Amino acid sequence: MVDNNLHRVYLVGAGPGDPDLLTIKAVKALRESNVVLYDELVHRDILDYCHHEAKLICVGKHKGHHSLSQERLNRLTLKMALDYPVVTRLKGGDPFIFGRGGEEYEYLIEHGLRCEIIPGITAVCGAVASIGMPLTHRNYSSELVFLTGHRKKDFENIPFADLCLKDKTHVIYMGLSRLEEIMERLCHTNETHGDVPVVLIEKATRKDQRVFTGTVATISDEIRDLGVTSPALIIIGRVVHILKRLNDKREDGLMRVYDSCLIK
Amino acid sequence: MVDNNLHRVYLVGAGPGDPDLLTIKAVKALRESNVVLYDELVHRDILDYCHHEAKLICVGKHKGHHSLSQERLNRLTLKMALDYPVVTRLKGGDPFIFGRGGEEYEYLIEHGLRCEIIPGITAVCGAVASIGMPLTHRNYSSELVFLTGHRKKDFENIPFADLCLKDKTHVIYMGLSRLEEIMERLCHTNETHGDVPVVLIEKATRKDQRVFTGTVATISDEIRDLGVTSPALIIIGRVVHILKRLNDKREDGLMRVYDSCLIK
Repeated sequence: MVDNNLHRVYLVGAGPGDPDLLTIKAVKALRESNVVLYDELVHRDILDYCHHEAKLICVGKHKGHHSLSQERLNRLTLKMALDYPVVTRLKGGDPFIFGRGGEEYEYLIEHGLRCEIIPGITAVCGAVASIGMPLTHRNYSSELVFLTGHRKKDFENIPFADLCLKDKTHVIYMGLSRLEEIMERLCHTNETHGDVPVVLIEKATRKDQRVFTGTVATISDEIRDLGVTSPALIIIGRVVHILKRLNDKREDGLMRVYDSCLIK
Repeated sequence: MVDNNLHRVYLVGAGPGDPDLLTIKAVKALRESNVVLYDELVHRDILDYCHHEAKLICVGKHKGHHSLSQERLNRLTLKMALDYPVVTRLKGGDPFIFGRGGEEYEYLIEHGLRCEIIPGITAVCGAVASIGMPLTHRNYSSELVFLTGHRKKDFENIPFADLCLKDKTHVIYMGLSRLEEIMERLCHTNETHGDVPVVLIEKATRKDQRVFTGTVATISDEIRDLGVTSPALIIIGRVVHILKRLNDKREDGLMRVYDSCLIK
């Protein structure tokens, strides 16, 4: 057991990508920290807020890159928290929406550490803000559902009969590698599903963000051979109609909206 | 039509309450704005970021308080955007999760304005961060669902048969006035629902935040006569077990975690 009055860990959400989407509270935590353990996907400009003497440790967490196992990461965070007074564990998005932040938090609490959570903008909120598409809308969607798609178990948990229903927006995190499988299964579940609009957002809020629109039946073909890589979000539901409709009306055009998504 | 090169509107999420949960991007928009139209629920400290000559207009949006109709609010935002170069419409939470931000955005785009969305921390992310309870977890929940409960139509749209299912976390925004009705209906839908844990969070991330735990069967009685008021969030699902379990282990106790939810 450590002395709680001396040692603390901040479990911090870094937001979706754009460094300006960090919260003031996260900036304060980074400035105060002796050690920062950060995900591979965290934008490097965010690390500029760290104290110049802080120890910065990249802990991976990006598919295909070398990264620590969850267990080794937990042990490393604990070791740092025992050796240094203030440690930040900096994660992409929000710490408590997917990404195993809950498990990291449990581990630290169970080892007697004082641990505070600082929420972050979850990826899809950043993504839809940048393209001007609401997630809920009185006329289109009164229910918003977040799922993950990257593991076999996740795939089995997807409620295929509920997706594509009127009044619902479904967001699939980490579903790119199973996109084709998910869309095919949706088409098989109900033939009307094929026409439901889909938007796929690659690298949300980053300067190299790309956005692809289609339907359940077409989206896999739309992105084939375009080299789309993770992280990517899949949004399914009638709210996507708003994106298409407004895009025609936007004076500056959709692509310019993407380019100007950072305030200069 | 206005000249897009001269006039712009930022539709900004102010986050759940705690002023430190504002993003850096939102701070930049506020500093740049000639006019700020803000919701009643936005923390007054956030307005300190506005330019000292900016025109600050409270537009209500809090139950029981005098507030503009959505149509009058849209017209007022448009008028300000025509009269001043930079206008911010500052909303609680995230502009694109409930709260009619999508409609405000559509109105502005349809009137030829250049409008940029700045996402905010949605209320529930702030709430669960402050109490240390993840929304998703490998062992408890792989699906996260957001609903609203304040209108008759919202109530009819609640998927009662799906709530309380294993592997799902349901969050009901603005459901306080229909809490009893929702919980009774859940108990009637399936008798096992009564035992599913519930947490209710009043005024999330504010200094006067209060948290109540119970089950679908007991939560209405738990808060009766305690003067709970809006805004309040209702979270239903097995992830609430984590809150109870960790609370026993937290060295500093749950109540102290609430009190220390602002970084000094």
